Amino acid sequence: MSLAYPPLSSRLDGLQSSAIRDLLKLTARGDIISLAGGLPDPRLMPLDRIAAATEAALSERARLQYTESAGWGPLLEVLAGRESARLGRPVPVEEVFVTHGSQQALSLLAEVLLDPGALVVVEDPAYVGALQVFRAAGARIVAVPLDAEGMRVDVLSDLLARGERPALVHTVSNFHNPRGVTMSAQRRAGLAELAARHNFWVIEDDPYGELWFDRPVPDPVATYSRNVIRLSSASKILAPALRAGWMVAPAAVCRGVELLKQGADLCGSALTQQITADLLADTEWLAAHVNTVRSSYGERAKALVTELRTRFGDRIVSTDAAGGMFVWADFTDGTDTAALLPRAVEHGVAFVPGAAFAVSTDYRHSMRLCFTTDEPETLAEAVDRLHRAIG
Amino acid sequence: MSLAYPPLSSRLDGLQSSAIRDLLKLTARGDIISLAGGLPDPRLMPLDRIAAATEAALSERARLQYTESAGWGPLLEVLAGRESARLGRPVPVEEVFVTHGSQQALSLLAEVLLDPGALVVVEDPAYVGALQVFRAAGARIVAVPLDAEGMRVDVLSDLLARGERPALVHTVSNFHNPRGVTMSAQRRAGLAELAARHNFWVIEDDPYGELWFDRPVPDPVATYSRNVIRLSSASKILAPALRAGWMVAPAAVCRGVELLKQGADLCGSALTQQITADLLADTEWLAAHVNTVRSSYGERAKALVTELRTRFGDRIVSTDAAGGMFVWADFTDGTDTAALLPRAVEHGVAFVPGAAFAVSTDYRHSMRLCFTTDEPETLAEAVDRLHRAIG
Repeated sequence: MSLAYPPLSSRLDGLQSSAIRDLLKLTARGDIISLAGGLPDPRLMPLDRIAAATEAALSERARLQYTESAGWGPLLEVLAGRESARLGRPVPVEEVFVTHGSQQALSLLAEVLLDPGALVVVEDPAYVGALQVFRAAGARIVAVPLDAEGMRVDVLSDLLARGERPALVHTVSNFHNPRGVTMSAQRRAGLAELAARHNFWVIEDDPYGELWFDRPVPDPVATYSRNVIRLSSASKILAPALRAGWMVAPAAVCRGVELLKQGADLCGSALTQQITADLLADTEWLAAHVNTVRSSYGERAKALVTELRTRFGDRIVSTDAAGGMFVWADFTDGTDTAALLPRAVEHGVAFVPGAAFAVSTDYRHSMRLCFTTDEPETLAEAVDRLHRAIG
Repeated sequence: MSLAYPPLSSRLDGLQSSAIRDLLKLTARGDIISLAGGLPDPRLMPLDRIAAATEAALSERARLQYTESAGWGPLLEVLAGRESARLGRPVPVEEVFVTHGSQQALSLLAEVLLDPGALVVVEDPAYVGALQVFRAAGARIVAVPLDAEGMRVDVLSDLLARGERPALVHTVSNFHNPRGVTMSAQRRAGLAELAARHNFWVIEDDPYGELWFDRPVPDPVATYSRNVIRLSSASKILAPALRAGWMVAPAAVCRGVELLKQGADLCGSALTQQITADLLADTEWLAAHVNTVRSSYGERAKALVTELRTRFGDRIVSTDAAGGMFVWADFTDGTDTAALLPRAVEHGVAFVPGAAFAVSTDYRHSMRLCFTTDEPETLAEAVDRLHRAIG
């Protein structure tokens, strides 16, 4: 038996494990308060409602069989209804496609929309799962910064004026991961207008839009142009184990994604998609459930932000955390967050340094803090430990 | 609002919907007996046992959360134990990886093992899901024919002697889809020896190995060489909706697949993987369950083959259907199966013409018949309709 194996693809050379995933492993120790994760709170997941939906789903054997690549019919129907309401136009089932979480939508769309070498515009700091996909697709990546109103559409406009021709612009429009901000209505209209004028696709990646704390988010970018492909997911409002993401896209895009999904994994699970359909269709229950999540997360976010400001004063500038799962904080005193992290872990607290999300800017004085899985008092203790780590 | 959209990737130009999938849609009419599918029988799926496992799984909230990309820990443990027994050596958990059905293993492995332009050897006729993946990866594909003992390893040896250097050889070693045959022990040893000598990977794609009717299949090709990556699945013995496939591969390959799975869809479902672990760990129940499936499929297979031989005599040569889900039949009288199909559908029966699986040979006188979902009397009626369609 030989110990040397045949070679692996050179595609692997440029790939690295996600820094966030490796950190998650590092900070799984029980004595560390980890604000480094990006996980929803399992205590807020609707266990009993999922159990009831599962029992109902298992009343028919068809839920155990292979299903269509585009998704389980009843879920497609429910999603078409939901998205029609969200987008203010009738969305036909042919424009809806169910994916294995919205990460799969990103990876299949990268293949459907991009030729190697195509230009992709991302936000800086970026959602690393999108960055990973676009890099693997061989795209050329240019970053546009974010500010308090979301993507700097004026910077994108300048890029276009200089002759750059993106195939695709990716945005996390609501409660950005990691930057926390939400794109203003004016910028949404502006981005859609540029997409129409310069004939590029926009992926509006929206896993967090329903997790607003004080007021709902503006209308989706997708309401302004059919060039916008909208992604959403059940992971943050119901449970990640349902692995239910979806997209709303022109039928031709959905058919391209369908061809690729057949090769990627044939189809999703009729069982978990039936459960998801059941929960999403139960609108009264769902509204109450999402309200509970909003109010818990909102309380935690406010506790974290208040504590940061109390402890650090003007040494830190942080987002307001109006929704979603993350606070982004910039040190104004020159603290290098990558250098801080090992000391912080020694003091029993973890976060993700800004560098992990950096594209063009280094974000070495920034960090992402996730507030979803800890109670206010634990979050206060985490900030206290962080303060002591800095000394 | 513009009616013209931005362009799609040129990657889509060469892609077609699977002929089998399109046929499946065509033959879903209630008045047609479809032997064209490739689906396990939902009446034989363990609905009650799955319901019990689901209830148990939902006793812990961790089953609703994101899980590791490599798979849910308890399922990895159960699979490592199963595969240790199957392969006759201790298989560590690091050499096991759970995928979203074994189709996902194929698509991720194509990226991990192949550079564009690499040579891939497939069997002729081929499993179309593999063919689709290797084509999408930009591989150069060469086919080696099958006979009653499986892959013609002598033909592969001739290719190697002529200087061909495959990166990868794909085989469905047991109860081949579509060809029905099982590779002999001698050929397995021969294939492994070639893989070691010429330093190529073998993917042993084995979704059907447990579905033997009279006697168990030979030891896996993977018992002969560590160059062999073994794929298996719960879809054919438990239920496709669990979307649980797995591979046994060197740890370095598993880590490569892990990096790509993060981009592809982050992770599988802890819920369905916990259910799968529960069922696979219940070995006494599982043995009895798989026996029931074997005996039903065996009865159906024998009914189909007997009826084919009775009706068509020496106008047809068919496989013996010693296991799996398919009978492969060759017309000896010049019947063109692609031309026959529309007439057959008119007469209320469907099959897949050999051409759908063809790589180098055209298989225009061949067809694949699936016997899993119909009772013996329905299968007899199907053969009767086929006979009348030929006239």
